[in-house]
Amino acid sequence: MVVRKEHFSKLQASYLFVNIAQKRKAFVDANPDKKLISLGIGDTTQPLPESICAGLTNAAKGLGTQAGYSGYPDWNGGAALREAISKEFYNGLVSPDEVILSDGSKPDLCRMQALFGDGVNIAVQDPVYPAYVDGSVIAGKTGKGIPESSGRYEGITYMECNPENSFFPDLEKLEKKSYVLFFCSPNNPTGATATKEQLTKLVAFAKETQSIIVFDTAYRAFITDDSLPRSIYEIEGAREVAMETSSFSKLVGFTGVRLGWTVCPTDVKYETGESVFDDWKRIMGTYFNGPSNIAEAGGLAAMQPAGMKEMSGLVSYYMQNAKTLRDVIVKKHGFEAFGGDHSPYLWVKAPTGKTSWDMFDLMLKECAIVITPGVGFGSQGEGYVRFSCFASHESVAEAAGRIDDFFTKYMADPAAFAGA
Amino acid sequence: MVVRKEHFSKLQASYLFVNIAQKRKAFVDANPDKKLISLGIGDTTQPLPESICAGLTNAAKGLGTQAGYSGYPDWNGGAALREAISKEFYNGLVSPDEVILSDGSKPDLCRMQALFGDGVNIAVQDPVYPAYVDGSVIAGKTGKGIPESSGRYEGITYMECNPENSFFPDLEKLEKKSYVLFFCSPNNPTGATATKEQLTKLVAFAKETQSIIVFDTAYRAFITDDSLPRSIYEIEGAREVAMETSSFSKLVGFTGVRLGWTVCPTDVKYETGESVFDDWKRIMGTYFNGPSNIAEAGGLAAMQPAGMKEMSGLVSYYMQNAKTLRDVIVKKHGFEAFGGDHSPYLWVKAPTGKTSWDMFDLMLKECAIVITPGVGFGSQGEGYVRFSCFASHESVAEAAGRIDDFFTKYMADPAAFAGA
Repeated sequence: MVVRKEHFSKLQASYLFVNIAQKRKAFVDANPDKKLISLGIGDTTQPLPESICAGLTNAAKGLGTQAGYSGYPDWNGGAALREAISKEFYNGLVSPDEVILSDGSKPDLCRMQALFGDGVNIAVQDPVYPAYVDGSVIAGKTGKGIPESSGRYEGITYMECNPENSFFPDLEKLEKKSYVLFFCSPNNPTGATATKEQLTKLVAFAKETQSIIVFDTAYRAFITDDSLPRSIYEIEGAREVAMETSSFSKLVGFTGVRLGWTVCPTDVKYETGESVFDDWKRIMGTYFNGPSNIAEAGGLAAMQPAGMKEMSGLVSYYMQNAKTLRDVIVKKHGFEAFGGDHSPYLWVKAPTGKTSWDMFDLMLKECAIVITPGVGFGSQGEGYVRFSCFASHESVAEAAGRIDDFFTKYMADPAAFAGA
Repeated sequence: MVVRKEHFSKLQASYLFVNIAQKRKAFVDANPDKKLISLGIGDTTQPLPESICAGLTNAAKGLGTQAGYSGYPDWNGGAALREAISKEFYNGLVSPDEVILSDGSKPDLCRMQALFGDGVNIAVQDPVYPAYVDGSVIAGKTGKGIPESSGRYEGITYMECNPENSFFPDLEKLEKKSYVLFFCSPNNPTGATATKEQLTKLVAFAKETQSIIVFDTAYRAFITDDSLPRSIYEIEGAREVAMETSSFSKLVGFTGVRLGWTVCPTDVKYETGESVFDDWKRIMGTYFNGPSNIAEAGGLAAMQPAGMKEMSGLVSYYMQNAKTLRDVIVKKHGFEAFGGDHSPYLWVKAPTGKTSWDMFDLMLKECAIVITPGVGFGSQGEGYVRFSCFASHESVAEAAGRIDDFFTKYMADPAAFAGA
């Protein structure tokens, strides 16, 4: 009979968000009267702004006309959007030909696995978005799962990020070997945004060890401080050692529309000197077929002056939520928290003695609020939870009220909630 | 330094359609005055019909409203479209939960490679659509390329299909072992459509050898004879041994919109008894993120009575082209040809002594028409060319006139074209 790809049996537990969905469903079934508020997954909720929506609508409408109809996309998507991205987001540091459009960052991050040899060393931040690890496992780049390790695998190097090291890995402690090094900034889940100095160290480390950095900038739009890099290519030398993924999902609310891109500079090479770009082209032409023409037209609308203004309006909207949550959780009740300044996630330390899942269960049971247990992102996330800021202002205001009430009761008598 | 995935170096030449694009470009650059007609790739050209286009447009417009906005899709897409597909296309032979929506067949066919162990035996028809082979090579399921073999690879079993065996593989000649067996009906490129008797043999062979069939029905809409199966699940027992991919690309002209699906019955198992469905779910949840919400709404519109009628109108439109081409190539000039009855491809035998690329070059040089050389689909395609029927009626009428003129000259004096 047909043999299962051996790597599947290595995969531990189920994908974090699936587990949460199950707990959520059980709660809703048991409490049909309670209005659940989701501050869990980073899913956008606000309608698309006018000119971006018009870009999509006009493209869809145009497909009904001979002049507006288009068939198969090019393997890398259309030139106009690639040019706009190269100019507006990279200031020309990468060429339009080095920008490859796709249906999103996550699929690109996984397709990328096919580029690298099986024996390659994968390095990820801990805590981190699970797709880098799950994608690596399925692609056979790791060893077995390590029991009771918060989802760790043999063969992956976990670069621990925590308040002690300002959420930037202690690179000098890493074994000096060649890695495919996944790095996410602004970080999901911690919200940490790497500085120019930190990224300069990262690029230097990659050059020294002849590694390739895969830099995930899905949250680039939330950086409000211009001194913080929005792209790894702002660092000198990065063109030789880094690919970069990004997405319109959080940028303009295209989580459901599906549009993203990967930058693959022609300077990135394998050990034997072949260009990574050539293989990426092959992968994208074989394992993919170009982004949806409608989504692409929406992306192009978003890159025009009116769209850029709308984009920044959406970002401000969600960042207002971060402030609302921070005010009640940090300012009023004194919890320790990170992020929420240049990222739409608030990374909150649970009260002493509580685990991530304890805190998740408490929030669900006491507040009917869904959040994300930090340990789901890695061992360094234990004792933390992630609040996502993508709900509506109304929901977040109501959530803040419930959180305030609950924390007030909790602070008065923590022991009453010991069993949670 | 980072090691290249070894399998990339095995890939031979460039993807067929890329080569053609280069020849085409060279011709256009050298003959800027000539109006090129493409009967090459199977890319749709006709505007979307009204109600299907309205489905897309309304969804796009709706994203600008709170009620119409939606974020991340489910891993398998929306229930409404899965239910419609289960009912309309499978008559309930597969459940809505076994239908998994995606951005197209080709990406699904390639993602599928991650399911099966590296040592699995891949079997493909020859000639056949190149993605099965290229996807298998990149995924490491094959040995090295075989020089001067029309793109064959060690470790792949090529099931030869030609007029002698009515384009159905001689299964009794195949070694009795377990395969992942890719089968395309109606076939791209030959246009051959397997009969119920043939598919019954195929399913019996899969059961006997404990193989898994991957059945590609991208051209299902072009079957006009109801006695020919449009799905492998019309064959008893297929639920245990077959996955099926399909697409809205050719069905309703969504080549650029991007929408397809894979059926994975829960009865399909690996050697060790695990359900293939569970891994497919994991793959689609990790390596993919659901189809575009706009595309999905368009697909749902296509499944309503008005959309189904429009779909059949589009199919008739393209099949009229097949008739036009057949009339001049077969009826008038007596060429041997297959397909074009239940498929939008005409598979034409080149004149004696001419190779596929000879015929390609002649058609480009003498008629300014782009077709596809049969040998690009495998060794059994040598001496054939594929005419795609996806152009407009006007283009096809003009192409038929040019072909008529050229074939008249050619038949009068073949030696005059010997150097081509």
